[in-house]
Amino acid sequence: MTRRVRVSGGRDTDRLEAFSDGVIAIAMTLLVLEVRVPEQASVGSNDELWRELARLWPAYLGYLVSFVTIGIMWANHHQIFRFIARTDHYLVLSNILFLLWIGILPFPTALLTEYLGHAGERTAGIVYSGCFLMTALSYNLLWRYPSHRGRLIAAEADLRVVASITRRFNLGPPAYLLAFVLSFFSTIASLVLLLLALLYVLPIADADR
Amino acid sequence: MTRRVRVSGGRDTDRLEAFSDGVIAIAMTLLVLEVRVPEQASVGSNDELWRELARLWPAYLGYLVSFVTIGIMWANHHQIFRFIARTDHYLVLSNILFLLWIGILPFPTALLTEYLGHAGERTAGIVYSGCFLMTALSYNLLWRYPSHRGRLIAAEADLRVVASITRRFNLGPPAYLLAFVLSFFSTIASLVLLLLALLYVLPIADADR
Amino acid sequence: MTRRVRVSGGRDTDRLEAFSDGVIAIAMTLLVLEVRVPEQASVGSNDELWRELARLWPAYLGYLVSFVTIGIMWANHHQIFRFIARTDHYLVLSNILFLLWIGILPFPTALLTEYLGHAGERTAGIVYSGCFLMTALSYNLLWRYPSHRGRLIAAEADLRVVASITRRFNLGPPAYLLAFVLSFFSTIASLVLLLLALLYVLPIADADR
Amino acid sequence: MTRRVRVSGGRDTDRLEAFSDGVIAIAMTLLVLEVRVPEQASVGSNDELWRELARLWPAYLGYLVSFVTIGIMWANHHQIFRFIARTDHYLVLSNILFLLWIGILPFPTALLTEYLGHAGERTAGIVYSGCFLMTALSYNLLWRYPSHRGRLIAAEADLRVVASITRRFNLGPPAYLLAFVLSFFSTIASLVLLLLALLYVLPIADADR
Repeated sequence: MTRRVRVSGGRDTDRLEAFSDGVIAIAMTLLVLEVRVPEQASVGSNDELWRELARLWPAYLGYLVSFVTIGIMWANHHQIFRFIARTDHYLVLSNILFLLWIGILPFPTALLTEYLGHAGERTAGIVYSGCFLMTALSYNLLWRYPSHRGRLIAAEADLRVVASITRRFNLGPPAYLLAFVLSFFSTIASLVLLLLALLYVLPIADADR
Repeated sequence: MTRRVRVSGGRDTDRLEAFSDGVIAIAMTLLVLEVRVPEQASVGSNDELWRELARLWPAYLGYLVSFVTIGIMWANHHQIFRFIARTDHYLVLSNILFLLWIGILPFPTALLTEYLGHAGERTAGIVYSGCFLMTALSYNLLWRYPSHRGRLIAAEADLRVVASITRRFNLGPPAYLLAFVLSFFSTIASLVLLLLALLYVLPIADADR
Repeated sequence: MTRRVRVSGGRDTDRLEAFSDGVIAIAMTLLVLEVRVPEQASVGSNDELWRELARLWPAYLGYLVSFVTIGIMWANHHQIFRFIARTDHYLVLSNILFLLWIGILPFPTALLTEYLGHAGERTAGIVYSGCFLMTALSYNLLWRYPSHRGRLIAAEADLRVVASITRRFNLGPPAYLLAFVLSFFSTIASLVLLLLALLYVLPIADADR
Repeated sequence: MTRRVRVSGGRDTDRLEAFSDGVIAIAMTLLVLEVRVPEQASVGSNDELWRELARLWPAYLGYLVSFVTIGIMWANHHQIFRFIARTDHYLVLSNILFLLWIGILPFPTALLTEYLGHAGERTAGIVYSGCFLMTALSYNLLWRYPSHRGRLIAAEADLRVVASITRRFNLGPPAYLLAFVLSFFSTIASLVLLLLALLYVLPIADADR
């Protein structure tokens, strides 16, 4: 791609992808800050530290679910931008909206970690699955806007593959909505569904094979 | 671009852009650290946690305004560097100055979050809008230096587009100055203006269409 | 590489590498947050501050071992992806699993820093070397999956070099397993072995010379 | 550069540069975490908050000196890698050593911020300038190893430019050593020298003009 094309033509998506990678990678890595070391003053032996570490299971679970979910979202972000050839004003905005929700995820994760197994667990679980639902919705927008009538799709893209991605994106919001509804009744069931949803969503990555 | 050109010619802007993306992405993602989880010990029920979460509205507002503002600045940074073909000493310095202000923004955001609705709100609001004003000014320098008489602009760039970007940049500092002045009288009015300014500034991204 | 190839062919590994670099770089840089400044209120003179700083030796040691170990893992990640020409679904998953373990490393590092020289040291040392063992195992998977029968290896790669990398990867897990076993008896001996293992692992970087 | 060359030839430096950019950008951006918001509970009016904010001057000064210094080091890192055509085992190690020192800089910055103007200032100032001295020394190694007898320098590089960079690098360690020695007598004088040194070091960026 020559300099001329870059200057005068539509914006290429490289820098938008690199910037998004940065925000996503940082959000994932900040999750570890919520796994807090037990205070040394209150630990008197090796056995006590084991017990304290075992008590941190909500933090490990929160780290696992959030890290893997965001990681899969990154993989899909990577995939859809292989088909998007140009950016425009609204795509940039949709992407910022998506990153806004990705960037907030360490907060509901920390909330879940703090309240799982304590008074307030239900509220924390609803907020957690609700934030993932919003992330999934903003993610759908990020695909629907450029793919609608092939608006920003590469001319040489295989339209059947584009359609198959759209079909799969149709499945995301209902799954996250179900996890959200479930969180009003059982936090653990909602978390399990979020993990199961991942397994289902995963094949997207090979949709173009 | 061949290795030879890279070694012997002017510096290309790729790495400067990537580095700036890094700083901007990190500053945006660190904002979430200021949305702090209510302490579990002081929460006795799900309803209490809802009330505690509602009380965090200044943190959500601060995250929203700062994340979106920095995100738009990233989009514009992306745009102006499509027209800048070379870097030199002073451009690198201008960029570091710009990043210095971007990098500090989590601090006034945290300050606003802490003091909105409490004694000290006025001071926090002035500091917040003042920092954005400084960021906008340093951002203007980052465009004016390379674009003045086309100093570092790509030879094949459309000069009418370059001029139209300059005209839009002329609007930024007065808008941020107004938000700054407003913050001496009403913090919320100043925040609303900052958000409105974004809507106005946004079309920059399509100036070259 | 033309746009057409990128859209219709197998996924290139560039963005996967850039994303991994991001997670690895952030995990390394977050380590410094565990080196905590002694509280000013409890320090009355320059000499006292020297003593307080000397007492932080476990934090410096933890930063050193973890930073260098992750740094070397980055170098090797860089190397193996020079031979991997394509990505697929399982490679992306293996990489997320690897990053999951890289991303958690600031936690065991902070744990070791807090408990080295105190009750609970043995437990902290076991967790620390155990996490590195898991990281090494997930790293092995990340090489074995694409290299098995040359599954995703570049067609033009020198197979003897690929085989030599595999031989070296065979040495990693036993070394980390030994450090893990050793940590049940002596934390310091385990740390020394981790550092020694690095010296041994290092030549991998030049395997292709 | 074709895939074949990348696989069979020496390693290109692109990913090493991108990874270094990541660590450097994160270290710079983490500095803001040491500028701590005054506690709301202890502030009763807007004027009080102004006074509290004024009391934070060591934090602003530490942020400024560290951010700009690391920023300039980034600019120079960028420059020297324009002349380095290949990487090898020892260059990767030198770079990790350099990043190890860059990554630790938020700690001495926080230390200086905490102790400037209090008992322990001298100690904090010595540690601060000492860490920058170590960074400068590891930085010199990063240039001397690849440039010694043109070991890893691009064949088409202008040797006079390479020699001029080397001459300038000769000036760095003595300047940082002087700032280190000065810190035993006056912390502020040492900080001023660090800032002055930057002004002097800056022209490096244009050495190849």
